[in-house]
Parts: sequence; C-alpha cells; structure tokens
Amino acid sequence: MQILVLGSAAGGGFPQWNCNCVNCRRARAGDPAASPRTQSSLAVSADGERWLLLNASPDLRQQILANPPLHPRRGNRHSPIAGVVLSNGDVDHVAGLLTLREYQTLSVYASDRVHGVLRDNSVFNVLNPAVVARRTLPLDSAVEIGGFDGAPIGLRVTAFEVPGKVALYMENEKAGPGFGTQSGDTIGLEIRAANGRHFFYLPACAALTPELGARLRDAPLAFFDGTLWQDDEMVSAGVGAKTGRRMGHMSIAGEDGSLAQLAVLGVRRRIYVHINNTNPILLAGSPERLQVEAAGWEVAYDGMEIRL
Amino acid sequence: MQILVLGSAAGGGFPQWNCNCVNCRRARAGDPAASPRTQSSLAVSADGERWLLLNASPDLRQQILANPPLHPRRGNRHSPIAGVVLSNGDVDHVAGLLTLREYQTLSVYASDRVHGVLRDNSVFNVLNPAVVARRTLPLDSAVEIGGFDGAPIGLRVTAFEVPGKVALYMENEKAGPGFGTQSGDTIGLEIRAANGRHFFYLPACAALTPELGARLRDAPLAFFDGTLWQDDEMVSAGVGAKTGRRMGHMSIAGEDGSLAQLAVLGVRRRIYVHINNTNPILLAGSPERLQVEAAGWEVAYDGMEIRL
Repeated sequence: MQILVLGSAAGGGFPQWNCNCVNCRRARAGDPAASPRTQSSLAVSADGERWLLLNASPDLRQQILANPPLHPRRGNRHSPIAGVVLSNGDVDHVAGLLTLREYQTLSVYASDRVHGVLRDNSVFNVLNPAVVARRTLPLDSAVEIGGFDGAPIGLRVTAFEVPGKVALYMENEKAGPGFGTQSGDTIGLEIRAANGRHFFYLPACAALTPELGARLRDAPLAFFDGTLWQDDEMVSAGVGAKTGRRMGHMSIAGEDGSLAQLAVLGVRRRIYVHINNTNPILLAGSPERLQVEAAGWEVAYDGMEIRL
Repeated sequence: MQILVLGSAAGGGFPQWNCNCVNCRRARAGDPAASPRTQSSLAVSADGERWLLLNASPDLRQQILANPPLHPRRGNRHSPIAGVVLSNGDVDHVAGLLTLREYQTLSVYASDRVHGVLRDNSVFNVLNPAVVARRTLPLDSAVEIGGFDGAPIGLRVTAFEVPGKVALYMENEKAGPGFGTQSGDTIGLEIRAANGRHFFYLPACAALTPELGARLRDAPLAFFDGTLWQDDEMVSAGVGAKTGRRMGHMSIAGEDGSLAQLAVLGVRRRIYVHINNTNPILLAGSPERLQVEAAGWEVAYDGMEIRL
C-alpha cells in the first residue's frame, strides 16, 4: 500500500491567506524552517495504478500537479484517481470536488448527511452523474471501494465515529447548517489493503475515548489530528476566539493531549496531520517540534510518501 | 492603476488535472516553453494598498501566495483584498470565494442572478454576512467600488453584456442551472480609476458585435477571451465534443476570430487571457504564438504586472 500526503495543513493552509502570525510570516518569507503546506488530504493506492483520495481539499488542483502518481497516463483524458472518501462536509474537505470536473469517471463515498449537503449545493452538479457515482459510506462497516464502474481497487474503508464538536445549541450561525454537531459528523477512517496492511486517518478528534484507544492499539500507522499545540493557541496568537475543544480538536500538549494520551497505545508509526498555521510544530527545530519528534511522532509535510 | 494577472488559463487551468494533450504533457514535464498557468483572474488597485479581484478562481489561495501585493501587511489578521467582482457564476470564477473565509472583511459584487446562485449554495455561507457585504452589480452603470465598509477604493466598474452562449433549450443538463443562457449572463467589465485610466476585461465573448466594437475602440488596454485558437480545437484534440461557439467563446484565428476582428479597433494594448489548455498560443515559439505576437497581441501569464 502506498500513501501520499497531498496536504498536511488544517483549513486555510500554511500560510493562511489573511494570517500575519509569526509562523505565516516566516512561511511567506521563504524561511526553510517554515515549509508551506496545503490543506489536509491523503492519497492511497494498493497497486500504484488506482488511487483513492481521503478528502478533497480546496488545493486539490495544485496537489495533483505536485504528485506525479496522480497525473494522467494514457489517452487524451485520464486520471489515476478512482475515488474520493469524504470524512465530513467541511469546506476544506469537499471544495476540491469542484476541481474533479471535466467529465472524468469517479466515485465519491460519504455519509448520507454529507451527500445531502452536496446535493443541496448545486455547484457540485459539475460532477456529472453520468460519470460520477455517489455512494453511501456507512459507519462501522468495511466498504470495498470501487471506481465509477464498481470494480474494486483493492482498498476497504471503515468509517467510525470519533468525539467531535460541541452540541448544536452551542454553535453560532457561522457554522452554517449545523455541521459537526450531530452524531457521526466527526469520523475517523481505517484503510485496509487486501494483504491486511492497514492504517488510520483521523484529521479531527476531540478526545481519546477508551473505545478509540482500543481501536488504535498496536496499529501499524495512524495519521492523527495535529491541529493545535495547545487549546487556547489561536486565542493567545490573537487570531481567533475559539479554543481547540470548541472546534472539535484535542491539543497535542498537556495531560489530555494526544502526545500523552496516545503514548501508551503502541501505535508503531504516529504522524501529525491537519496542522493549523499557528501550531509551533510547523517550525523545524522549534522546542515543540523537537518534543514531538523525541516522543516518536512525525510531522507530516506535503509530498511525504509512505509504503506499508 | 496597477494590474496583476493572477491566473491566465481557462477553467481547469494549465495543465488540467485529467488532460493528457500535448500541451498538458509538456507543461507537466517542466518544458520551459509550456509554463503552467492557474485559472483566470485579475487583481487591480488604484493605490497599491487596496485591491479588487476580478473573479475568484479555484486557485485563489495559490494565487494570493504567489503575489506579495496581496499578502497581509499588519496586525494579526489582514488582507489588502478589499473586494471581488464576479463576471458570472461559473465554478472557475466563484469557487475561490471559499478561500476568502476566516472572518475577513470584504465586498462581493455580482449580478442579482449570480448572487442568487451564491445564496442557493450554502457552502458560500462561510462568507459571514457580518464581515462580507454582497452588493448588486447592475448592467451599464458605473459602480464606485467600496470595501466592506463602503469606503471607495478608487475604482469604478461598469458591467456590460457581451454575446455569450446559445439558448437554454440547446443546453444539456451538465450545464446545471442554465447558467450562461440568459441575457446578461456573459458580461464584460470596464475598470476605471479616478485619474481616468481604464481598461476592459472580457474573459468570455462569443462574437464581436458593432456595439462592442464601438465600446472598445481606441481603448488603452483590453484583456480578451483567448480560450481557443480555433472553433473545433477541443474536438480535434480528442478531449471534448463542444465547439468554442457552443461554449460562448469566439476563436482567435480565422475571419471571425478576435485577431482579425479586433485588428481595426485601435486598442493600444491587447492581451489574451482565459486560455484553454489545448490552445497552441500557450507554447512559446509556436507558429500560433508568433502569429498573435506579430499582430501586436500579448499572451498573458501568471504574475504579469501592468501599470496604466
């Protein structure tokens, strides 16, 4: 199984268009310790021929261009991208679908609720139903992923609920249609090849419950929510009023943080993804980066390749 | 007045994600004669401080990053982008609005019909009405552009109808909600600074009518529809069934083409924009590129800067 990190930053990317924080300034200035990162997405393949996208970020056109395995290979029109799995309906996970127009066959897997959002937004009609199959991704059930024609591409995906955002009544209107506030709105994915190799992808997770811990125990690889270093990071950076908990993300640091909480699970390879522009682990050589590396974690970067 | 070409390619960009035509292959291979181009958009400023975007392409995040005048300058959150004018509701002209989230003040000017599309697509609710003003852009009337607070930024924009796509009954369902098929769906823009300097932006135009000719006569600068070299270009390249005329674009070559038709209008500077990936003028040194250059035209490229 091959895995490509297409984008490793949280929503907005790194640097973020309107953010002038220290990290973003350094990234814009070309500081080699502050490599730019596009928005969170992975590509996975069992055979190197047909690829599955985990989420479709707004940067998808740029991400495809930067990753030769995703370039067309034959004929006049072609793409190795056979399908897309959406972990939720956030703009930073679905906007890239708008790039996948141009009458190319494709399958899109998502919860019924996310499909409802796509249906209610007519811009996604650029994905012509004649060539794009929209399929339901149920919870807690391994789904054999197929391309548009249904032919299996050698990957099975299991979606499972993880702790997410606070309840609807605490949301403000900015959140739009109440996304991320119902059961099943925040999910993790297990991706498994026919040979049994597998990994977990959890770009958002608000807390490590005992159930989740049991699922992850002794896993060969997990990409985990690395949005924030600490819960009040955006508040202290002066760029926002929301805490990580409020946004459905557990922090890296602290007793309740992922660094401490995952330490005892025996996950053999642990990689932070979905990293917010304010997070100090983005800076090579920062004390926080050194701390996560010393604890055996890796910090994902765009173009990172993994073979399982 | 300063003008930045943020993106010079038509929808899909160059190379296009799933296109394997000769041009796209050369662009992907890094051929210096085939420079990659992002999707069509301009940025304009009267004072170098506050910028107006003409359309918001899906590549906007990448385009902002590539153009330092659009970077934040002060405080924790800031953007020199004061407003956006949308020439239509096509995905390649509106998807970039999704990048302009993150609670940044902004104004968006479009026809009522385009605003209706934005309203009907809840994903655009990421543009919080508390900080983003949506204003009507009427036809044939100079509008003083203001930022969110309404304070003028020194630019007046006049939208005017230009010949566009064929009638609704000839559209297929792929076209979605019938866009580009009603009067006023294809518009050109005249942008004028307080000092009288002005230019035209016509990324789509199906024919040069006498009215349009009169409007453009002796203009100092026009960015014009350079989508296709010839009408059946996508058909001959084997990448599509639609002619240019069918898509609302007049070709460059031929008796009815823009090269011949605009030759007599005395437009002092003529620049092709919105160039499709199949168009041979994308290749430096190609006979077609040499022909348009010999006729006094320029071929826009990403990052092109113009002062008027």
